[in-house]
Amino acid sequence: MKSFNPPVRTLMGPGPSDVHPRILSAMARPTIGHLDPAFVSMMDETKEGLQYAFQTKNQLTMPVSAPGSAGMETCFANLVEPGDKVIVCINGVFGGRMKENITRFGGEAIVVNDDWGTTISLDKVEEALKENPDAKIVAFVQAETSTGAWSDAKRITKLAHDHDCIVIVDAVTSLAGSKLMVDEWEIDAIYSGTQKCLSAMPGISPISIGERAIKKIQSRTTPIPSWFLDLNLVMGYWGEGSKRTYHHTAPVNTLYGFHEALVMLMEEGIENSRKRHRENHYILRDGLESMGINFLVNEDDRLPQLNSVMIPEGYDDAEIRTKLLNEFNLEIGAGLGEFAGKVWRIGLMGYSSRKSNIELCLSALRSVLK
Amino acid sequence: MKSFNPPVRTLMGPGPSDVHPRILSAMARPTIGHLDPAFVSMMDETKEGLQYAFQTKNQLTMPVSAPGSAGMETCFANLVEPGDKVIVCINGVFGGRMKENITRFGGEAIVVNDDWGTTISLDKVEEALKENPDAKIVAFVQAETSTGAWSDAKRITKLAHDHDCIVIVDAVTSLAGSKLMVDEWEIDAIYSGTQKCLSAMPGISPISIGERAIKKIQSRTTPIPSWFLDLNLVMGYWGEGSKRTYHHTAPVNTLYGFHEALVMLMEEGIENSRKRHRENHYILRDGLESMGINFLVNEDDRLPQLNSVMIPEGYDDAEIRTKLLNEFNLEIGAGLGEFAGKVWRIGLMGYSSRKSNIELCLSALRSVLK
Repeated sequence: MKSFNPPVRTLMGPGPSDVHPRILSAMARPTIGHLDPAFVSMMDETKEGLQYAFQTKNQLTMPVSAPGSAGMETCFANLVEPGDKVIVCINGVFGGRMKENITRFGGEAIVVNDDWGTTISLDKVEEALKENPDAKIVAFVQAETSTGAWSDAKRITKLAHDHDCIVIVDAVTSLAGSKLMVDEWEIDAIYSGTQKCLSAMPGISPISIGERAIKKIQSRTTPIPSWFLDLNLVMGYWGEGSKRTYHHTAPVNTLYGFHEALVMLMEEGIENSRKRHRENHYILRDGLESMGINFLVNEDDRLPQLNSVMIPEGYDDAEIRTKLLNEFNLEIGAGLGEFAGKVWRIGLMGYSSRKSNIELCLSALRSVLK
Repeated sequence: MKSFNPPVRTLMGPGPSDVHPRILSAMARPTIGHLDPAFVSMMDETKEGLQYAFQTKNQLTMPVSAPGSAGMETCFANLVEPGDKVIVCINGVFGGRMKENITRFGGEAIVVNDDWGTTISLDKVEEALKENPDAKIVAFVQAETSTGAWSDAKRITKLAHDHDCIVIVDAVTSLAGSKLMVDEWEIDAIYSGTQKCLSAMPGISPISIGERAIKKIQSRTTPIPSWFLDLNLVMGYWGEGSKRTYHHTAPVNTLYGFHEALVMLMEEGIENSRKRHRENHYILRDGLESMGINFLVNEDDRLPQLNSVMIPEGYDDAEIRTKLLNEFNLEIGAGLGEFAGKVWRIGLMGYSSRKSNIELCLSALRSVLK
């Protein structure tokens, strides 16, 4: 067994996206103790940077020390009590995963189904809310990573609140790539990933929890079925500087990288980051359409950072992706579920969302699709 | 908010230990996709390296994608069913945390208490087993990080098996520092950390699960109360190469570092690693004793990698540790629980276990304790 030297890829799948060299080199800085005063200050800054990314003043805004799936689980394990009715919108893989979380924690899932590749229907959500006046939570995905479809987080949240429900929002792929205003839209609980539009390495999961959600956690009558993800304990660890209570050993070097990603986001400005994602999407779209490649999702519902396109007839999915990887060191994503073998997912996320990547992708596709 | 440049510390607390430059630089290698064939091969090698570290052939041997606390929770969430009687040995903080896990998952904890700083009493364990013939699991810590006391994992496991119990072992601080033979001792389920005697960065948690434990998981009648840590799902992800099922996005760069740590362990040899930890402990011990500093734990029960010593009379705990940090960039650990303010914990773990660190620690202590 020898040291592992990975091939140098261009990552244009559904994540991880290309990690910027600044972030890679931040990760390699010397490890310090997780209770070191210097580390504690860095945690405070990370919290501020993340509040900026989420556009929130929520005190309980921090990265969970585990990947996006654990951020999801943190929200559901803390907020869903056995017997709680939860309306869950499913228009792709990750809505389905929300449902699995709900039932694991003893909740009753009321499913609002929409076709994969389409946006969540507001009418259906409203109907479900009217039919279930005892529902407590509405859970949905803002940016479905499995299909590339966007949904209207602002209006779904408004509908939920109108019916006395709180919301749990999956923003794994949307954070820093799509418009996302946690405070303005009054989102109650949200989780995201680091390896998408923030271009940091995978491994931790930003969350933000607002007042209504904290109240629901505090009024639980059953214990939270996790020690590691219990927000009552995690809050003590990510709380104000001097009061910090040891909970677990933070992933120190991963947090260095994440801190750097937030510094870079602040340097660029979140509006500029979104604009870049949008503009680069148009360039990719025009290039793909000029090759006769069609998009899966209607123009209005498309995510700029995740482009799902139909695999042209007569080509084998795996064969083409393998060629792109072997000949061009270019990774694009396969379709999931009902779209396996039919769709490619081309990510333009974070540092991957740049013109040189688009040119590489288009010319590599032209080369292998001939 | 600016890029974070951590101070360069010497880490001689209870973990993280100094991370070797080879491991830091491995972490900074370019991120690749978590389904990239090159990454999948690296995962296979990591599994092999970890089997070597644990001295096991268990197929279910892998790092959980979250810190040690999550490795602990993986074992308890999967193995403890509501109503299960679990004998748990508490002789420090981490035995207590095991108990919290048991009750979270609906188990009934039968506590075997020993004084903090002492080893687990085999007689008490046997007594508890006799008094609770319906107990299903014995849970204990091999190396109590909170006190520096070692316990006899081989004999406790034998006792448990004699009474038809399986064992869950906390090896967070022992792996690669203390003798640990998972197959020879027939340990059923074990979890560890990366940031102790393996000197990798914190953030993932190696576990190994044997046949008896897998049977117990498979014969559950209630669902596992976690999606993220459900071993039925995680097994699919860390399974054999081609059959891999997507579960979550692996912490790619952290795994690069961990892989490098395992390569280094194999280069040194696990016996040599233990020998180095033992020999360096003697040098530190002699130096501390020559200064009149006494150990908390009886000689026979001491962990070579974690030295708990009594704070000499007349000195203020926090003041001295702050001086060591500010004047020498040296971190040593505070006491926990009943030992707070009374004990220091000096770690000689992994890359921190080297002569130059010992000399720095001894001379810095001489300088501040005058």
